[in-house]
Amino acid sequence: MTEEKLVSIGEVYLKSDRSSGNMVVLKEKEEDSHHFIMFVGDSEFAAIAKEKGMVEPKRPLTHEFYLRIVDNLSVEFLRIEIYDMKDNTYFANVFFRANGSEHTIDSRPSDAVALALNRKIPILVNYKLFRRELTPEEIKEYEEICKTVKF
Amino acid sequence: MTEEKLVSIGEVYLKSDRSSGNMVVLKEKEEDSHHFIMFVGDSEFAAIAKEKGMVEPKRPLTHEFYLRIVDNLSVEFLRIEIYDMKDNTYFANVFFRANGSEHTIDSRPSDAVALALNRKIPILVNYKLFRRELTPEEIKEYEEICKTVKF
Repeated sequence: MTEEKLVSIGEVYLKSDRSSGNMVVLKEKEEDSHHFIMFVGDSEFAAIAKEKGMVEPKRPLTHEFYLRIVDNLSVEFLRIEIYDMKDNTYFANVFFRANGSEHTIDSRPSDAVALALNRKIPILVNYKLFRRELTPEEIKEYEEICKTVKF
Repeated sequence: MTEEKLVSIGEVYLKSDRSSGNMVVLKEKEEDSHHFIMFVGDSEFAAIAKEKGMVEPKRPLTHEFYLRIVDNLSVEFLRIEIYDMKDNTYFANVFFRANGSEHTIDSRPSDAVALALNRKIPILVNYKLFRRELTPEEIKEYEEICKTVKF
């Protein structure tokens, strides 16, 4: 496996509109033109929005429910890495320490990002998955492509 | 708190249609006319459908992701209880053993049922939340009420 550049994410943005759905945009810094974008389902969008303080669901969301279970155990979450895209699907790993050793769990990026925001751990994204800022014309075409991508 | 009768669920049914949404129906036995019904979101419906072997998502769902983390720890899930309805919302508790003691975690019933099916642990429902079989006329009226109930 070749050495790949991981970018440490500083900004997580949410956008939602009827035509393109729920978008999660990750950037290293606010002023950067390069970004990582993924389209997510309603529950995953709500989970990330909750962690950003944008919504306040009355009942625990799925990831909150499990994090409360984990809080009874000795688990230290370390970081998440969104590292690849295969068959039009992004892949992430979540790293944590338990029972004295480090573990890695396969994850959808949306679950990983919600967890990372909750636990305030680093979000790392493979630079090859980043995109430069698009022109309005490119956005239209790009969104058509993105809508066919599953997460 | 008064002693309340808990029913042990033997059957979990899923129904989905455009007019009434995603329904999860719990019964003690297949032939029983009394049942517990709840309306759930798409993700929660998918999680339960996955556990029933009805769908096979390519990527881990949120609860599967967390259960894989929990599998690295010493947790024994014991049972779930759907025990009350307040402010038009059903409430459940999940019971588990970790570090030598028993813990209880507040949960939405949909998360609890998906977990229970995954771990093959008892699903218990307070009998006061059960309903008898409805006539077709009652179903129409009842579904209107249910649609306003949040889970």
